[in-house]
Amino acid sequence: MKQNRKGLLLVISGPAGVGKGTINLSLISRNNDIRMSVSATTRAPRPGEIDGVHYFFQSEEEFQNMINNGAFLEYMRVFNTHYYGTPKSFVEQELEEGRSVILEIDVQGAMRVKAAYPDAVLIFIAPPSMSELKSRLIHRGTESSEAIDRRFETAYEEMQHVNRYDYVVVNDILDLAIARTEHIIAAERCKVSRNGELIEKLQGGRSAL
Amino acid sequence: MKQNRKGLLLVISGPAGVGKGTINLSLISRNNDIRMSVSATTRAPRPGEIDGVHYFFQSEEEFQNMINNGAFLEYMRVFNTHYYGTPKSFVEQELEEGRSVILEIDVQGAMRVKAAYPDAVLIFIAPPSMSELKSRLIHRGTESSEAIDRRFETAYEEMQHVNRYDYVVVNDILDLAIARTEHIIAAERCKVSRNGELIEKLQGGRSAL
Repeated sequence: MKQNRKGLLLVISGPAGVGKGTINLSLISRNNDIRMSVSATTRAPRPGEIDGVHYFFQSEEEFQNMINNGAFLEYMRVFNTHYYGTPKSFVEQELEEGRSVILEIDVQGAMRVKAAYPDAVLIFIAPPSMSELKSRLIHRGTESSEAIDRRFETAYEEMQHVNRYDYVVVNDILDLAIARTEHIIAAERCKVSRNGELIEKLQGGRSAL
Repeated sequence: MKQNRKGLLLVISGPAGVGKGTINLSLISRNNDIRMSVSATTRAPRPGEIDGVHYFFQSEEEFQNMINNGAFLEYMRVFNTHYYGTPKSFVEQELEEGRSVILEIDVQGAMRVKAAYPDAVLIFIAPPSMSELKSRLIHRGTESSEAIDRRFETAYEEMQHVNRYDYVVVNDILDLAIARTEHIIAAERCKVSRNGELIEKLQGGRSAL
């Protein structure tokens, strides 16, 4: 009998610039039993974004139909404009087949997922310090100083919700942060609460006497 | 700022023959920040047992003095004869210095530790199946078949309490079982609940703006 055969639903959040995208890409390339969930959205693709890779780009009507069919694990409308959502079918199929699925979503999305899937594992990727985060945002060099200030304000805001997560992984050294996340995934598979079938079998094993 | 600087109190239980002793020895030899706690007892040493290594062998008076001084993390009297206990000072000093401490104790002891130290991490080492456990007990070849039956009965009894543990680690392949236990230790250090100091610092980091 193997340990926990069902996959884990992993929610990975963290402020812009903390490196969560790099960590997640590394997790899926190193582990063939971990997949990334692709979100659906009604906003238009930005240059370079590929349908089905970065997002599933949908019309408002398609998105509404999926809402009506209960086909989202969670969804939200941003500022009364665009919808964003996590399609349920991909996630559920992967979990059923024993693979874990990463949702890279923000704090509000994470809370909606936790409400729908109490078994989800919530991981917050944190910078070693806020000044380090600021300097990473600056050194990306892709944004105006106003945009950087806004991102940092948002990061500070997000940081106030870390306590609602299960784990905090500090991205001080990338390889360490990846390893910590892998440790968390492996450990969660050993949780007693995820091994009911195995335990029941062992508890009934008196017949081996 | 580093992740969780305090050590973990690890309670590792499991039936006779499951290989928990081997796993624990391996953990302390592979990780210089993990130590084994040595229990105190009033029973006489068995051949080959060394004071301070296998147990601290004490007189009933010494043991009673320690009880009176609140010097045990947990203790019990077995069948109105011998006392067994976990001296508190060693454990607390190691934890304070950032090292983790393994207590290899039975289910009842584990529950007493959890009551005294709610932060303790409880790990149950389980056999892949009860018939496999039985055959391991038989192949040790050190005991009469009555003794083996008694051990198996006790194992079956202990197995009924797995649900009171945090994690179950199946010892199917020794190296895997060791790795799983190491994953658990690393993951627990990332728990949000163990990183209050780090999180508070990040949440107060707005001054980096």
